[in-house]
Amino acid sequence: MMEAETEDFFTEQNVIDGFVFQVGSLEALYLAQRGHRVSLYEYREDIRKTPQVRGRSINLALSVRGRQALKGVGLEDQMIHEHGIPMRARMIHRLDGSTYSMPYDARTNQCIYSVGRNYLNGLLLKESEKYDNVQKFFNYKLIQTNLKNGSLTFTNTATKETVEVNADLIIGADGAFSAVRKEMMKQPLFNFSQEYIEHGYLELCIPPGSDDGFQMPPNYLHIWPRGQFMMIALPNQDCSWTVTLFMPFKNFKNINSEEVLIDFFEKYFPDSIPLIGKKKLIEDFFAGSPSPLVTVKCRPYHVKDKALIIGDAAHAVVPFYGQGMNAGFEDCTLLDELFKKHNDHLASILEEFSTTRWRDTFAISDLAMYNYIEMRDLVNRPSYKLRKALDDFLFWLMPDTWVPLYNSVTFTSMPYSQCVKNRTWQNKVLAMVILFVCLLVFLFLIYTRK
Amino acid sequence: MMEAETEDFFTEQNVIDGFVFQVGSLEALYLAQRGHRVSLYEYREDIRKTPQVRGRSINLALSVRGRQALKGVGLEDQMIHEHGIPMRARMIHRLDGSTYSMPYDARTNQCIYSVGRNYLNGLLLKESEKYDNVQKFFNYKLIQTNLKNGSLTFTNTATKETVEVNADLIIGADGAFSAVRKEMMKQPLFNFSQEYIEHGYLELCIPPGSDDGFQMPPNYLHIWPRGQFMMIALPNQDCSWTVTLFMPFKNFKNINSEEVLIDFFEKYFPDSIPLIGKKKLIEDFFAGSPSPLVTVKCRPYHVKDKALIIGDAAHAVVPFYGQGMNAGFEDCTLLDELFKKHNDHLASILEEFSTTRWRDTFAISDLAMYNYIEMRDLVNRPSYKLRKALDDFLFWLMPDTWVPLYNSVTFTSMPYSQCVKNRTWQNKVLAMVILFVCLLVFLFLIYTRK
Repeated sequence: MMEAETEDFFTEQNVIDGFVFQVGSLEALYLAQRGHRVSLYEYREDIRKTPQVRGRSINLALSVRGRQALKGVGLEDQMIHEHGIPMRARMIHRLDGSTYSMPYDARTNQCIYSVGRNYLNGLLLKESEKYDNVQKFFNYKLIQTNLKNGSLTFTNTATKETVEVNADLIIGADGAFSAVRKEMMKQPLFNFSQEYIEHGYLELCIPPGSDDGFQMPPNYLHIWPRGQFMMIALPNQDCSWTVTLFMPFKNFKNINSEEVLIDFFEKYFPDSIPLIGKKKLIEDFFAGSPSPLVTVKCRPYHVKDKALIIGDAAHAVVPFYGQGMNAGFEDCTLLDELFKKHNDHLASILEEFSTTRWRDTFAISDLAMYNYIEMRDLVNRPSYKLRKALDDFLFWLMPDTWVPLYNSVTFTSMPYSQCVKNRTWQNKVLAMVILFVCLLVFLFLIYTRK
Repeated sequence: MMEAETEDFFTEQNVIDGFVFQVGSLEALYLAQRGHRVSLYEYREDIRKTPQVRGRSINLALSVRGRQALKGVGLEDQMIHEHGIPMRARMIHRLDGSTYSMPYDARTNQCIYSVGRNYLNGLLLKESEKYDNVQKFFNYKLIQTNLKNGSLTFTNTATKETVEVNADLIIGADGAFSAVRKEMMKQPLFNFSQEYIEHGYLELCIPPGSDDGFQMPPNYLHIWPRGQFMMIALPNQDCSWTVTLFMPFKNFKNINSEEVLIDFFEKYFPDSIPLIGKKKLIEDFFAGSPSPLVTVKCRPYHVKDKALIIGDAAHAVVPFYGQGMNAGFEDCTLLDELFKKHNDHLASILEEFSTTRWRDTFAISDLAMYNYIEMRDLVNRPSYKLRKALDDFLFWLMPDTWVPLYNSVTFTSMPYSQCVKNRTWQNKVLAMVILFVCLLVFLFLIYTRK
């Protein structure tokens, strides 16, 4: 039996941001199901014992890839039915406060789910208690790593005790600032890039209404697209909303007084002020500073048959496609398939994962960057609406042939790189059709002139 | 008076490769000229005391940017006249051993210079002895860095003694695997990428002939372009040639016996075998393993008014445009201009260098990658030769307006990004001219038909 150590620790830098998902806990369940012994080391304390800090816990958009991964360990239904709030459409807020909605999937009414990070993590950790072969260690900080021989040294941050552990396989699921990846960087021929966008994000909150219900229609992802910046809101189970403002850092900097802040919101998000509450808006806005958003691309993801990185550690993306967690969870599904295919032969599993997965993670990374422009700007434009209507119509006409980009990414498990290729093909077809129609019109005009 | 520490140390990884230039020594001279106190720390021992290892010391191609930088400290003439071998053209070796040449600058006969790395470094270090305000420390390994307060801790590798030094400004000129840059990476919003190409390089040597002279015409950069791989040779002052084979790692791997090696050379580089010597070829080829080639892009280059990276530490490029050292030396020229412009006010100097320089280093980085394809493949094609002939003709006709890409990069100090823009403009003009000529021919044909 193989002993695997799934790491899930964090560098100090990482603690500041909320985009950390428990890909490690899910992978532990998958390995445990296959009968492997798993030790899960985590830098922070057990999330189930931590009081949830409102306004700092981003909720997540769970879509098909994430659902399938949860299904593989028998948790899909529980997650969706007990803790998920379906979002069936984008609801766009205009400057004047009026709204209109754009369904994600007009054809079959599929939806994405808003889930609380803490709920999800709690569920995964609770599930692991059913397995005798999973051990969990909280408050363990990684201080030394030897990827080649599979040894790790941790310090218990509470007792200050130091332990060295040895594993057949080290899996680093330790987020965008991964310590395991830092070790991998010392290997020759390791390609790596980290790129920050010029925009940061800041979280606000719309509390439940006076009737303890939602203050906005709940089954939507609300968007206030404003060209160079945008605000979004996702529903929480307690009927509050997590509101996130995405904006260039320099614009954040310019909002340096309560007056400027209120002026800014009255100009761009007037309908949100009574929902958030003026006092709460001022309090929450100036309580923290905007957080950065980073894209990480790297390859390979493994060192021989000894170490592997997955999730954000391998491919952190900006959050605008709602695919960060879903892509991380999909890693677990794919790895499980490879474990079956290669009959637990680690060298083959890791090699195949490394050489095939990067094309898809690079693709979703680029798509996520593109989707920010779509969400904050394009979504408002007639050309975008026309294309979406056309895509939806063709999708309705030929559901197996014409899957629009968003739908293929969100509601199928088609490889991300294939989604991009599909879109390129669709663009070509549309261009040719338009050319053909123009030609027909032209011939018709000439013909009727005679 | 400001005290500056110019660092020039290396991580262990770095020792393996030969693409390390003494940008630090040059910058030290520039700072000393302006009256600053400079301490130069170097991980290795004084290069003047190290015996030159033949076959592992890449010679460098010095072009206008590097020359101008040397001129600024009064070393251009000495370098070129005493140690430089002019190369006025590429000499292309065909499969059958026949050759033809392509001048770099048919119009004014400008040339690039092959210079020995050791000669160049020795010259820079010797020059620094003229300055009382430059102190040099060899065999010092950096073990701790605090960029914000300008402190560095070194261990003397000989005496094992540890020293802490404080500086007004830390300059990391410590190569592609820079330790100073690694510290910078801990800053928020630091963008970074390292990308290895799938090709490696291996150095061979053509010794002087039996008459102690050159075995090939010396005033050329010799190229054996073979599509997916290539070999080049640069002349040395002792009448030997440094020969470098660039090839995908997997091809290197396939050459696993003396027989295969000789077969390979007989097939692709037959004329080089008698020059290198069969015995020496086998010896040198199997003595080492191919080295990797990396591109590093990052930004910003500074931390407040306390730390800066220059040269390969800031922008390592693949060697195919012969601009790695030249770009590093150009950093020194540009910094000197900024020191004058901002009257030694560090915060302004570093800020302006960071916000302006990256566009040009990113441009030369992409150009260097492109030039590999040109050198190993395109150079052989009729379309390339036609374009070069056309470029040369237009350059001769309009020397101020139509500077071909290679010439603007190599023989001017036009910002690299401007060279690229120029080329894009030239491509557009040529496309329009071709379209116009086609139209004329078409009209002429119609007219003569009547």
